[in-house]
Amino acid sequence: MTLRVAIIGAGPSGLAQLRAFQSAGKKGAEVPELVCFEKQSDWGGLWNYTWRTGVDEFGEPVHGSMYRYLWSNGPKECLEFADYSFEEHFGRPIPSYPPRAVLHDYIMGRVEKSDVRKFVRFNTVAHWIDFDEATQKFTVTVKDLKKDELYSEDFDYVVVASGHFSTPNVPHFPGIEVFPGRVLHAHDFRDANEFVGKNLLVVGSSYSAEDIASQCYKYGAKSITFSYRSRPLNFQWPECFTVKPLLTKLVGKTATFKDGSEAVVDAVLLCTGYLHHFPFLPDHLRLKTSNRLYPGGLYKGVFWQDNPKLIYLGMQDQYFTFNMFDAQAWYARDVILGRIALPSKEERQKDIDHWRALEEKVETAFDGIDFQTEYVRDLIPATDYPMFDLDRVARLFKEWENDKAASIMGYRDNSYVSVMTGNRAPTHHTKWIEALDDSFEAFLQHPAAAE
Amino acid sequence: MTLRVAIIGAGPSGLAQLRAFQSAGKKGAEVPELVCFEKQSDWGGLWNYTWRTGVDEFGEPVHGSMYRYLWSNGPKECLEFADYSFEEHFGRPIPSYPPRAVLHDYIMGRVEKSDVRKFVRFNTVAHWIDFDEATQKFTVTVKDLKKDELYSEDFDYVVVASGHFSTPNVPHFPGIEVFPGRVLHAHDFRDANEFVGKNLLVVGSSYSAEDIASQCYKYGAKSITFSYRSRPLNFQWPECFTVKPLLTKLVGKTATFKDGSEAVVDAVLLCTGYLHHFPFLPDHLRLKTSNRLYPGGLYKGVFWQDNPKLIYLGMQDQYFTFNMFDAQAWYARDVILGRIALPSKEERQKDIDHWRALEEKVETAFDGIDFQTEYVRDLIPATDYPMFDLDRVARLFKEWENDKAASIMGYRDNSYVSVMTGNRAPTHHTKWIEALDDSFEAFLQHPAAAE
Repeated sequence: MTLRVAIIGAGPSGLAQLRAFQSAGKKGAEVPELVCFEKQSDWGGLWNYTWRTGVDEFGEPVHGSMYRYLWSNGPKECLEFADYSFEEHFGRPIPSYPPRAVLHDYIMGRVEKSDVRKFVRFNTVAHWIDFDEATQKFTVTVKDLKKDELYSEDFDYVVVASGHFSTPNVPHFPGIEVFPGRVLHAHDFRDANEFVGKNLLVVGSSYSAEDIASQCYKYGAKSITFSYRSRPLNFQWPECFTVKPLLTKLVGKTATFKDGSEAVVDAVLLCTGYLHHFPFLPDHLRLKTSNRLYPGGLYKGVFWQDNPKLIYLGMQDQYFTFNMFDAQAWYARDVILGRIALPSKEERQKDIDHWRALEEKVETAFDGIDFQTEYVRDLIPATDYPMFDLDRVARLFKEWENDKAASIMGYRDNSYVSVMTGNRAPTHHTKWIEALDDSFEAFLQHPAAAE
Repeated sequence: MTLRVAIIGAGPSGLAQLRAFQSAGKKGAEVPELVCFEKQSDWGGLWNYTWRTGVDEFGEPVHGSMYRYLWSNGPKECLEFADYSFEEHFGRPIPSYPPRAVLHDYIMGRVEKSDVRKFVRFNTVAHWIDFDEATQKFTVTVKDLKKDELYSEDFDYVVVASGHFSTPNVPHFPGIEVFPGRVLHAHDFRDANEFVGKNLLVVGSSYSAEDIASQCYKYGAKSITFSYRSRPLNFQWPECFTVKPLLTKLVGKTATFKDGSEAVVDAVLLCTGYLHHFPFLPDHLRLKTSNRLYPGGLYKGVFWQDNPKLIYLGMQDQYFTFNMFDAQAWYARDVILGRIALPSKEERQKDIDHWRALEEKVETAFDGIDFQTEYVRDLIPATDYPMFDLDRVARLFKEWENDKAASIMGYRDNSYVSVMTGNRAPTHHTKWIEALDDSFEAFLQHPAAAE
């Protein structure tokens, strides 16, 4: 009987899994029956921008955390698919930091050419998954949101590819409940125009804080006050930026910080991270982890240790993204196809412990880059996913870190050499800080036409 | 063996159910084992104000739709408990339109005195409920949000009291996805100060639209443009208000309406209603209805026709509120206690059909008031809930409608006679339009002290 594989989510990770199987099928392999359940009405995961916040038209929590005017915050050369280069997709080299619509087009291009859309059931949310020890099958219960009906099907494998940047982590600060202005988490941020002329308090010091603050500045916010818990965002910020330690309270519009200093602000933007959240999984199958480079309980960062027929993709804190998801999806595919035999539970645990011990030693961003490079290097050679020069990608990540340190508002004007094609990206026709139009057409227009 | 009753939600309806059983127990009845599951960390349902929007600290959709500076939009004399008057709670008559904190205090006062808090498991969300035909019991699976763990227990009855003003109905309008400013549903509205000096587009023509627009005006919005689908909000609005037909598109900040007219707006507030949403119930137990005076499939508006051990409270579109929830809860209690025998399925259906036929004849607001008055009158005499003069309440509702028609910004300055005590409410010390401080203390301070 044909194996059945359920894939939860049609974002970059779920699509990588579909593509992995399609690639094997094209080369003659017998491929399992695939069913990908996608909550949204289209694929692309976070890259499928939605104007909605809170809950969607069916009352389900909105998946999207993407905001307007988002440009890649890392070089596209670091996330390029090894089997489908940007140059192949666009027919020519393009600049290194594309806006959302351009990246979206690239990710979708590969799967559209692979004819895997037929495997996706849209507007269908995973409701409950359980495993039957007797039959060794998963029962996957989903809700057809348009029909407003639940139904169940059995599967041999379940691939959880629902992401971990959709459920906001929202801490409380004294006085925030009566702040006389907007309070929002990055998850609900959509349009910087709302904050033109405003004094913003941005709590957090990771990518969301750095990027949303930069964008609000670019579109006309009056001032940005950062507040950090453990480490400040040490960049050379424009003059209207201030970096403060942790917010201790809000009284009216006055924010007070741990060092006793104050700032008067019009809005509070909580860039305080996301939760790994899988409401459709029972406790014994559910990954519970903070956002880290090597979540526990996952062999090869992918296979649920207590039941390796349950597979998680992309659950790591990420430097590598799309091509790492590919490496994971190809590996998972080959286990499902019987091409790779999983070792015993004890050996898997030893491997997990090995990686966790290495992860413990990570101190700097460069360490993190090196760690994840080795992790990806551990996966790819076991499969037929095209190996690429991982050391060069690691160097690109470090170059990117240095470029950001040199100019937080200017780093997106740099260009890098593709590891896949060897070609250097052209310089974009407009500096990022001046490029207010982030449309596909504006970005891809010929440099000459832009002048 | 003692019967077990699960109550989903500790808002006004769930609390009414707890109080109903406590009242019977006090009079000597043998009371079932009660377990009330409440998602929030405290009771009060919508009246338990939260600053959060979207999802809560556990990743669950936020229940609260309550906003700051909300004052009752109907006279408190229409919602007074028949067994616990405002005068009993506050020790003296108070004005007719209290702000949220005062109403919250009143609702909580009764249950606090009843010692029913011990039945409530807080931070516990209903995850899944199913019924076993063999054992004739419900298995209720809940998530302890703090422990992040699921567990299940069996019950003989389930009372769904989770409300229906928590899951927003959010329609799409062309161009809304690129509107350069804030777009929000009433569910996410929290603080009118965010809109000081702004031009607001308010889509919708029911209570949320009317009240949020009035409040934004009160706190300093520059202009309000209403857009209605079927009926305009026909009140004597201040000059900065405009009433338009349905929004057809947004281009930049320019809204276009069905009559071709336009308005330039800074924010879009969707007051477009709520969905009955019960993600914890299987299709065969789940109420699917629009917001109406008599949802189908509920005998006496309460008992699920296909399985009357499943009970829904407060699922109606509402004129009557707290005392209607009481009437329902007392009736449900007496069925559970065996004091009221449910008729056959056929007879129940005849009764449902009878009420639905009456509901079909409702055309005006006054018709709706009369319909719901008769509905409540049908419930109370079967129980020991204190009967009160329902015709006087109906007249109060109509008086209220007339007072709103006379002055939409001034109707809250009126006072009415309590049906329970016969005493007229005092006039409030400050006109609503000038009362910017909505705190418990400010409202209840002695008139003399306010001067």
